[in-house]
Amino acid sequence: MSAIELPDRVEVVNIGLERFETAVRDQGAPAVGVDWRIPAGGDLDAVAALARLLGPAADRVDAANAEVISRLDRGVPMLLGVDTAGSVISGMDEGTILHCGPRIAWADMCDPLRRSVRAAVVAEDWAPHTEAADRMAQAGEIRLEPANEHCTVVPMATAIGPTAPVYVVSVDAGGTTAYSSLNQGSGAVAWFGVDSDAAIERLRFLRDALGPALAQALDGTGPIDVFSLAAQGITMGDDVHMRVQATTNLLLRDLLPQLVRSNVASIGEVADFLSTNHLMFLNIVMAGARALVEWAGQVPDSSIVTTMARNGTTYGIRLPGRPEPWFIAEAPPVQDALYYPDQGPDTSAGDIGDSAVLELVGLGGPAAANSPAVAGFLGGRMADAMAVTKAMGRICAGTSSRFRLPVLDNAGTPLGVDVRRVVETSITPAVNTGILHISDGSGQVGAGVARAPVECFMQALIDLDQRLSVRPNV
Amino acid sequence: MSAIELPDRVEVVNIGLERFETAVRDQGAPAVGVDWRIPAGGDLDAVAALARLLGPAADRVDAANAEVISRLDRGVPMLLGVDTAGSVISGMDEGTILHCGPRIAWADMCDPLRRSVRAAVVAEDWAPHTEAADRMAQAGEIRLEPANEHCTVVPMATAIGPTAPVYVVSVDAGGTTAYSSLNQGSGAVAWFGVDSDAAIERLRFLRDALGPALAQALDGTGPIDVFSLAAQGITMGDDVHMRVQATTNLLLRDLLPQLVRSNVASIGEVADFLSTNHLMFLNIVMAGARALVEWAGQVPDSSIVTTMARNGTTYGIRLPGRPEPWFIAEAPPVQDALYYPDQGPDTSAGDIGDSAVLELVGLGGPAAANSPAVAGFLGGRMADAMAVTKAMGRICAGTSSRFRLPVLDNAGTPLGVDVRRVVETSITPAVNTGILHISDGSGQVGAGVARAPVECFMQALIDLDQRLSVRPNV
Repeated sequence: MSAIELPDRVEVVNIGLERFETAVRDQGAPAVGVDWRIPAGGDLDAVAALARLLGPAADRVDAANAEVISRLDRGVPMLLGVDTAGSVISGMDEGTILHCGPRIAWADMCDPLRRSVRAAVVAEDWAPHTEAADRMAQAGEIRLEPANEHCTVVPMATAIGPTAPVYVVSVDAGGTTAYSSLNQGSGAVAWFGVDSDAAIERLRFLRDALGPALAQALDGTGPIDVFSLAAQGITMGDDVHMRVQATTNLLLRDLLPQLVRSNVASIGEVADFLSTNHLMFLNIVMAGARALVEWAGQVPDSSIVTTMARNGTTYGIRLPGRPEPWFIAEAPPVQDALYYPDQGPDTSAGDIGDSAVLELVGLGGPAAANSPAVAGFLGGRMADAMAVTKAMGRICAGTSSRFRLPVLDNAGTPLGVDVRRVVETSITPAVNTGILHISDGSGQVGAGVARAPVECFMQALIDLDQRLSVRPNV
Repeated sequence: MSAIELPDRVEVVNIGLERFETAVRDQGAPAVGVDWRIPAGGDLDAVAALARLLGPAADRVDAANAEVISRLDRGVPMLLGVDTAGSVISGMDEGTILHCGPRIAWADMCDPLRRSVRAAVVAEDWAPHTEAADRMAQAGEIRLEPANEHCTVVPMATAIGPTAPVYVVSVDAGGTTAYSSLNQGSGAVAWFGVDSDAAIERLRFLRDALGPALAQALDGTGPIDVFSLAAQGITMGDDVHMRVQATTNLLLRDLLPQLVRSNVASIGEVADFLSTNHLMFLNIVMAGARALVEWAGQVPDSSIVTTMARNGTTYGIRLPGRPEPWFIAEAPPVQDALYYPDQGPDTSAGDIGDSAVLELVGLGGPAAANSPAVAGFLGGRMADAMAVTKAMGRICAGTSSRFRLPVLDNAGTPLGVDVRRVVETSITPAVNTGILHISDGSGQVGAGVARAPVECFMQALIDLDQRLSVRPNV
């Protein structure tokens, strides 16, 4: 009987639970981890749908996805100007307030969104004060509409009425036009869930001063290529979601000659506002992304997400060719967050806003790798920001040819969130976002990276599978 | 006799010539290279001086260097305003033109610098046209002075007369004030060695429109912290030398409220110019660096370089406590260059301009690692830009606490070029710079990374050794 020879050296490839690999590494031996998880979280319906969508139906879905990604990659959103919401957004009748996220009744709205709606109602002069606005909303006298269903997107808890100024952005190739509110700036403002007199005054300033000044300036410059600016901004450290400062500054530089020549009476105050609002470009690029997904969303049979929005209560997504129903889950708390002093998860409202549309077009999370600002929210190391981009790469079906990351030797950002990959890996899109106070109307309490709930992606996957089964390929 | 056992595996550490290590690696064996070179290029005088300055005199030099680096790191250059050169720069009598680089006679000036001087003379109305200006210069009727000797710095081939507007930047802690010309923008302009009517007109535009508008705007804002803006700019991809676009935009954003309210008649044209000039901040940060090295340069016994400037013919440096003589070598060609079509080394003038002062304060080459724009000039990979920063790290005695590089997990940029390290390693400072046409007055032909000639550093080292020997420590 010969003795068993034990190896004097161990090298381990570990699949699944990280703790096994850590144990090996702690003893000084090399270990490589493979991040494997049970597909679809083990949900049998989802596993079956996934098997079909990655199996017999894969070619059909892949072909549709290729067209969706092509549209997302080559459509050129152009900022055409600023106009009044009620005059350009279809279906925005008197008494309508557009809000972020999926459709939601007044009774179910989170506190910050209710405050924002009240502020908008008062700014519209439909009510003399927020108490009266609240009574109108409770009585059903306000028509609450999801902005997304009017080809409009609004960040955080923004709510807008018909007299609010909006950016107008079009994609010529698709013939689509989308809209977004003007950014309200920082501090005690309605889009952060504040309904103070000052917050209402800010909404009127946007309507009476900023809107007209930007409308005039953009008439002067002519159409502006929104994603070209965004691409430059990425090389300057913007993820173009949580951080848009470099891109905002590029736009301000382009607008400078028009602003200096403006004959708008309050142009001085407008300049004061623009000079201190680092987030101006956020809403513009959101409108650009919305015009693009409107076009991409017309392709049938695709598994690429073309709507992703939250209202603080629910989180909803949509797939191309399927405007109704939205696939809905509860809005999760924001993780990986940095909080202001004395703030934390207990004082934070749920994830909110339409800005997640950016993560669908290769911006925000997909562009995190090159952003020191995003790294700052994740502990300061660029490797942490890189991990966000890499995770998005695992659930995206393509890469952007125009948004490129210098730190990855100009690799394109991940583009096109594929519900199949999301459900398979249980990795959901990372959305770089702000966090609002849960109840006291004090506004922003922090910022961080929000993870979408996997449930909406599982619903969308199962629905896609059913639709394809009912309508076989021809 | 036992057989010699040959190893079946070879691992090599190679010191010196890279080709040995490449040969090993080509055969599939691991090899680590140590970049070792003969100290001081084998020059015996320099080797002896180096031995003393790194040996018996090291403590004395190190102590002086610590003070120099502390000043370079903690001095806060503040932009105070814009004024007329002749009214604020001392010794700038009628008939004086300040030029870049070390002192040089008209007969020895390179073509682009002569053209720039001629343009300045005509802009001053001392001559009706460039031919007359040329005759005046030849006849010795123009007093040609190195800007640096008047606490002024000018980029590329800039030359300025007494009516030119200049930035005024002070460092309170040191009580030092320095000046810089206003950036003339891109295209066919005098600082690029063009002496056309349009180039002369641009100088008059700076004097009559841009200067007054910026003077008024800066009166309105109050003093601006130049290096705070530069530190932000680095995180946004600027090396703050070759590329200053992000920093320029930050400044424009800060000036916007003043510019919009300006009552300067030609503010529209000023805004047009500012909106398209990516290099505005270059001259401002140069003035900031100059004010800082003026303070640091007052410390005796130091081996940290506090002047580094080129005029296209010669390259000169100075050490603290030693205003005269400059240590001079021939101005080298710019290496690692990207050229415009049909341009190359044969059509390129020698390295030129005072902007190398930036590399003395932790900007430019030291900040290359985070700059996609610099990487672009080196082939596109961020690793190439990183190598520039790392090389600067080998010849610098400290690191900046305010200029931090996100891609290096916020490590400070290398700060304080030590002539001992330069001579020991034969690595000279990398200066990110533009390249001008050698003779035809057509302006910029490319950009790249210039390497300072080691000869001036060897002269400075030997001179420092002699000074310390003559005046022993007390």
